[in-house]
Amino acid sequence: MPLHVPRCVIIVAGGSGSRMGAGVPKQFLLLAGQPLLMHTIALFARYDASLFIVVALPVAHIEHWQQLCSTYRFGVPHKVVAGGATRSASVRNALAVLPDTDFIAVHDGVRPLAPVEVIARCFDTASHHGSAVPATAITDSLRKKTGDASYDLPRENLYAVQTPQVFRADWLVHAYAHTADCPGAFTDDASVVQAAGYDIILVEGSRENIKITEPPDLPVAEALIALRRS
Amino acid sequence: MPLHVPRCVIIVAGGSGSRMGAGVPKQFLLLAGQPLLMHTIALFARYDASLFIVVALPVAHIEHWQQLCSTYRFGVPHKVVAGGATRSASVRNALAVLPDTDFIAVHDGVRPLAPVEVIARCFDTASHHGSAVPATAITDSLRKKTGDASYDLPRENLYAVQTPQVFRADWLVHAYAHTADCPGAFTDDASVVQAAGYDIILVEGSRENIKITEPPDLPVAEALIALRRS
Repeated sequence: MPLHVPRCVIIVAGGSGSRMGAGVPKQFLLLAGQPLLMHTIALFARYDASLFIVVALPVAHIEHWQQLCSTYRFGVPHKVVAGGATRSASVRNALAVLPDTDFIAVHDGVRPLAPVEVIARCFDTASHHGSAVPATAITDSLRKKTGDASYDLPRENLYAVQTPQVFRADWLVHAYAHTADCPGAFTDDASVVQAAGYDIILVEGSRENIKITEPPDLPVAEALIALRRS
Repeated sequence: MPLHVPRCVIIVAGGSGSRMGAGVPKQFLLLAGQPLLMHTIALFARYDASLFIVVALPVAHIEHWQQLCSTYRFGVPHKVVAGGATRSASVRNALAVLPDTDFIAVHDGVRPLAPVEVIARCFDTASHHGSAVPATAITDSLRKKTGDASYDLPRENLYAVQTPQVFRADWLVHAYAHTADCPGAFTDDASVVQAAGYDIILVEGSRENIKITEPPDLPVAEALIALRRS
């Protein structure tokens, strides 16, 4: 392992994919002829070939993944660690194997379409401000459910958060060192880092940077890939 | 015009489409070989062939639309009214031409993929409770921007609202009669009806029920249509 790399990414691919109903973990579903997770990993290698890439996978899927890498002759170097019971636990396990580094991105394994510009924008902003989280303005009307009824919620200044979320390495390490793994307490890493007292800077995300969590998302992703190739 | 129809729909197609950057109003963009708005209108005829359909279009686009209907031999009967400067003004103009009716749906012209089950669910629920608004649970983490920084916002019980939004006709007419057209005050009809004191019931929407507002949405819609046909 190198002694120091400027930038790392932790790709969290811990989901069992039960919502997809396909029997295959969603990160292994085929997208444009290749397991989804390979697209995700390749994004980061395309941004910076010297990036140190760690993938957190459920223990039960690691062997299957290694077989897939061999079958598909997947050539992007990456380290695999065992995922934990929660997202936070998976990030912790990945942090433990990182080389000395300056900036760490955390990315969802099931976001195979993050534009390289968005990845670059996040690392650039984090290098100046310590954190960078891609987000898109909420364009739908919002309602909060209250028993049987609901009320409308102003959407001004509200953003839907994506990944990669990039942080100064010392901030992220410190935040995780001072945070317990309460299931459900944190829905993303920005919340963990914020809870440790650091400011979270929002940068422009992309509506193409979708998360594959339900069956209709897969043809949508295929369409976006076809569009990029055309 | 019939004296009484049980159900009507107002399709609001007032947008200029500037965000699409295509020069063509977004509701006229071709989707699977047909102007988008025709797909939207056809959804409602598929749900109920006796539904009374009103489409609110900018005055400047009405002639173009009539030519398109002739070119594409579009056979679904519908009435066209001039749209207003705001969404609310367009709904008002449409309300003025409706026959006597029991339930009125208001739908975005640029949502050409609302599943027929969702339309049915909205009319069914409104027939029991007076209102029904399709919505999907927020699955992204949310942040509120505050100057340079941002803070995380709990997403529990938060829903992104879609259309068709269905209301008892007397509720919707009363709500619009007692509401001024303040630009930006209301982002949807549920907010107008709620402001008049009525309860808004949320029903399950669909993630396929996307709004076409940006260029990448179009290939996504094509992919979803291809999926439905396969």
